[in-house]
Amino acid sequence: MAPVFNQIAIIGVGLIGGSIARAALEKGAAGEVVLFDGNADALKRAGEIGFGKPAASIEDAVRHADAVFHCVPVGAMGATAKASIGAMKPGAILTDVGSVKGNVAREFRGLGRSDVHVIPGHPIAGTEKSGPDAGFASLFEGRWCILTPEAGASAEYVAATDRLAAFWTALGSKVERMDAQRHDLVLAVTSHLPHLIAYNIVATAHDMENVTDGEVVKFSAAGFRDFTRIAASDPTMWRDVFLNNKEAVLEVLGRFDDDLTALRKAIRNGDGQKLFDVFTHARGIRREIIDAGQDTAATNFGRDTSKKP
Amino acid sequence: MAPVFNQIAIIGVGLIGGSIARAALEKGAAGEVVLFDGNADALKRAGEIGFGKPAASIEDAVRHADAVFHCVPVGAMGATAKASIGAMKPGAILTDVGSVKGNVAREFRGLGRSDVHVIPGHPIAGTEKSGPDAGFASLFEGRWCILTPEAGASAEYVAATDRLAAFWTALGSKVERMDAQRHDLVLAVTSHLPHLIAYNIVATAHDMENVTDGEVVKFSAAGFRDFTRIAASDPTMWRDVFLNNKEAVLEVLGRFDDDLTALRKAIRNGDGQKLFDVFTHARGIRREIIDAGQDTAATNFGRDTSKKP
Repeated sequence: MAPVFNQIAIIGVGLIGGSIARAALEKGAAGEVVLFDGNADALKRAGEIGFGKPAASIEDAVRHADAVFHCVPVGAMGATAKASIGAMKPGAILTDVGSVKGNVAREFRGLGRSDVHVIPGHPIAGTEKSGPDAGFASLFEGRWCILTPEAGASAEYVAATDRLAAFWTALGSKVERMDAQRHDLVLAVTSHLPHLIAYNIVATAHDMENVTDGEVVKFSAAGFRDFTRIAASDPTMWRDVFLNNKEAVLEVLGRFDDDLTALRKAIRNGDGQKLFDVFTHARGIRREIIDAGQDTAATNFGRDTSKKP
Repeated sequence: MAPVFNQIAIIGVGLIGGSIARAALEKGAAGEVVLFDGNADALKRAGEIGFGKPAASIEDAVRHADAVFHCVPVGAMGATAKASIGAMKPGAILTDVGSVKGNVAREFRGLGRSDVHVIPGHPIAGTEKSGPDAGFASLFEGRWCILTPEAGASAEYVAATDRLAAFWTALGSKVERMDAQRHDLVLAVTSHLPHLIAYNIVATAHDMENVTDGEVVKFSAAGFRDFTRIAASDPTMWRDVFLNNKEAVLEVLGRFDDDLTALRKAIRNGDGQKLFDVFTHARGIRREIIDAGQDTAATNFGRDTSKKP
């Protein structure tokens, strides 16, 4: 298979950037991978691991790239794009992997290079780990990648979008195209709210260690530990998500809060029927997720003491 | 090794009851296991699987038992204990596996058999599955089991508590003794609140499927799926937990709500520093949980696409 792109640039060599680089090389989706990171140690480490060629500057990294992937926290996308866009080739693709698309798209398009194709993207894949050592080539296999191209654009732009989609497909992803605003609402539900709630419950439990004396950690297997995994994700990345998807997150959070108030009232009033109905409903959605291939059916996610097949 | 008990009775042959029975036989902790369940189909199925001898009635099940384990939802404990206590041997142990201890202890002690040792218990182990087929013998290995014996009781009672502790140890558990009220507060933090929040977030997401058109399930791997596992737990069991641990749950929920209000305000005001601080804090507790052996360090709980070692 000929590579989809002769050369790509990866700006930010953390979990996602490092995984794209590894996957692109391993699967032959890019002929060459050039790397840059504002953190010199991370860039050096990436070079040692060998998932691409470190560049001396961000401009050098993008100069010959057919596609430039900004893989930094959402709040830093504008700055890295601005610092490098002047050095990009005409006709090259400017894309990213951020969890918020509306703000990033606006920032990219505001940079005034109409001869560069701005096609924001978001691979729905990740782990709770960060840094150049965290990535791996199979991260995107079987996972969705959402692209949010402009509507009604030129034939050349459409062709560039198809090329970017082909790249993600070569990495093992299933590609979906979506309006940026819709992406931001859907992800507020499936990702941003769950992370916020996970962070919050961990904070609450941590506060309560004053009265529970180490017992939260000790007995965390009772359910709490499930929340701590996603709450171990990169704090800078998540700070930026909430600052950049404020409206959608606040809307979804408002609904969550209304639902929680109703559950709290049911507990206070001893309304067992209401509790039972809500809890019964929840089972169905787990089944749907497993049937959709989005999670393992294995007991306890297949981890530790669950030695049952 | 001689069995800790010559005969035990398991009332309720679901995930926990079925696992105790299997573990007791496999590890030789009980000479004989007698089973009863109000659901005739479940009892029949348990007999087919063969993890004990089904009894014709609840009285018959407990008649010769040295220890009777009530493994039913917390709201049914009082009724199953009442129905069987008259048939229990003097000196036998009356125990349970419920997630709430204060109410259950009061109900058991109110039955008026001072010649029976009431020693409530709670193995901190489980999965999201239910029913006679869900159990397995290794479920309790390396997991905590909390016993909440009475303080200042007779030497005979203390000896019975030691025997029950030896039984759980034989099943692979680490045993902890605790005051019932403290248990209910600690578990409200580590288990009851997380389950309530998981149920609530699944309900919110489900409501939003009206505006997101199947996309919550489709993109659930973005974080949401983690919550659906514990929200797939038995609804009757959880209804009873909230009805029977109302005060502690409402207290912890109040703290959660205060913390969430602060996070919401930080998002609304664009206070990135506050968000960053809360998120950074949360990482540490995950590390503590892994170091305490309460969860796997494997990426993504070791599941599916994470092919990284």
